Amino acid sequence: MRHVDVLIIGGGPAGISAAIWCKRLGIDCLLLEEQSQLGGQLFNIFNEIIDYPGMRTKNGIEMQREMVKHFVEMDCLYEVNTKVLFIDERSKTVKVKKQAKKQEICYTYLILATGSSQRKLGVPGEQQMIDRGEVYSASADGERLKGKTVAIIGGGDRAFEGAHLLSSKAREVYLIHRSTRFKAREQYVERIISNPCIKVMTDTEVTAIHGDRHVTSIDLESKNKEYKNKEYKNKEYKNLLVDAVLIRLGVAPNVDLIKGKVATAQNGLIVTDDVHQSSNPFIYAIGDSCTTPLFSSISSSAGQGAIVAKQLSSMLNI
Amino acid sequence: MRHVDVLIIGGGPAGISAAIWCKRLGIDCLLLEEQSQLGGQLFNIFNEIIDYPGMRTKNGIEMQREMVKHFVEMDCLYEVNTKVLFIDERSKTVKVKKQAKKQEICYTYLILATGSSQRKLGVPGEQQMIDRGEVYSASADGERLKGKTVAIIGGGDRAFEGAHLLSSKAREVYLIHRSTRFKAREQYVERIISNPCIKVMTDTEVTAIHGDRHVTSIDLESKNKEYKNKEYKNKEYKNLLVDAVLIRLGVAPNVDLIKGKVATAQNGLIVTDDVHQSSNPFIYAIGDSCTTPLFSSISSSAGQGAIVAKQLSSMLNI
Repeated sequence: MRHVDVLIIGGGPAGISAAIWCKRLGIDCLLLEEQSQLGGQLFNIFNEIIDYPGMRTKNGIEMQREMVKHFVEMDCLYEVNTKVLFIDERSKTVKVKKQAKKQEICYTYLILATGSSQRKLGVPGEQQMIDRGEVYSASADGERLKGKTVAIIGGGDRAFEGAHLLSSKAREVYLIHRSTRFKAREQYVERIISNPCIKVMTDTEVTAIHGDRHVTSIDLESKNKEYKNKEYKNKEYKNLLVDAVLIRLGVAPNVDLIKGKVATAQNGLIVTDDVHQSSNPFIYAIGDSCTTPLFSSISSSAGQGAIVAKQLSSMLNI
Repeated sequence: MRHVDVLIIGGGPAGISAAIWCKRLGIDCLLLEEQSQLGGQLFNIFNEIIDYPGMRTKNGIEMQREMVKHFVEMDCLYEVNTKVLFIDERSKTVKVKKQAKKQEICYTYLILATGSSQRKLGVPGEQQMIDRGEVYSASADGERLKGKTVAIIGGGDRAFEGAHLLSSKAREVYLIHRSTRFKAREQYVERIISNPCIKVMTDTEVTAIHGDRHVTSIDLESKNKEYKNKEYKNKEYKNLLVDAVLIRLGVAPNVDLIKGKVATAQNGLIVTDDVHQSSNPFIYAIGDSCTTPLFSSISSSAGQGAIVAKQLSSMLNI
């Protein structure tokens, strides 16, 4: 059976950084990525990246290219299209599948860099919208959404931030949330509720997204018919004409593989100490699988990759 | 009196990152740097930087250039040649001096990014050697030191790592330490003690470095005349002919300004929580002033800058 000292699951910025650092420190290391390319959530960044010190890129793909170039130049070992099926933490073995071929890999230390995923609505038309590339950034796509009618779905910080940013650009902004309670910070909520350009609909679920070439409308189901802004209190929308939908339901850490095997917090994040060790002394976690979205960034993921590799170098007596 | 929401002291990678992130998050922020240029310890990196994911640079100066370019493009506010004389944590004010001019700046939050400094021997000839540029990296300068006689001064990991790396390149390697106890990891010590190419002298102090155009010899004072390698046990060196001296006495965090005002650990580092808050709720610390050298890196400093700015953005309700 193949053995590596350090096995990294996940090839986003955290995993790439850990692999580069392992290589730099002379650690025998292998990185596994489920997708056909390394980069992880970098593929979801469509706006300019201005917050990775020393390196500004047009978008996530350009950052991905630079990080992968660095990774490949360093001769880091990796496998793409390789799905981890099972982690057996007792025998310190993972079962993986690459195309039809299954194999087992044995590790001394495991680094989980599995990242997080955007939560989806799970309604008809949603995937088609994403596949058509109708994925917007509220901060970067202000011009693209100028004069449009925009629906933002969600009740957290990012939904409210998006509504605030777009309220000065778009023709109309609807903020639609399935509950009457918001997870967003209070000052965000106050700012939006008092903004006459934003129509806040609570207790309202989106049940479908329509449109062939681009989004044209959404179906709504209102549970309590209670709307926060006075003027919308007694109106009921069953179908709302919109030009764009921004789904802001937050992210969930990708921790299915490790559930019940290491301690996780109530928000689903893997609990680690300051050198990123989980509750299992042979399993470490870095990046968005253990970092709250509020503190998530390419910079901090890269920093965590450095720290975990330095820690493992010392554990492995290299 | 001038007031800023966030005042950053120190313009190395940690401070630069914090400032870029503050700007990105819309925080009113000012960075103060004592030297004439931003960059901090980047100026001490003479070898290729291969461990900042996405960006490889020839040396620290090239990294400094890219980071400062980014910082300036983002319109971050800063002052160079500005020495902080005193921090009054009660009135949340710092007294600074720029050339002859003194002024006071009031802050809501203070970020200490003061870094660390290489410890020096403090002997005649040392500063002249540094000023002549005779500063070597054991990992990068193997070829430059090939066939030379090299003295490495220190008893920690970096001294032992340097001796190990150079033992296959240099003609002779002396590892000179003022005590018989080593701070280096045991496996490092064993590797060096059993290496016949390295002469280990303990209880020996370097009292002077000689040489006009380049180092030619060092003066030694042996306290106990006890040498670790058998063959050197009964020899006494008063002057040792060497071609190069590598001072590896470790680093000390730059915390003089804040001594007694925030909690520090036994190793001198500022104690912080996971969002980099110190024991004073209005004072944060990032980078080498709060990070052990073992875990220090440009990546982790940049990551800490991101985290502290995100935390302060939330504290300031931005």
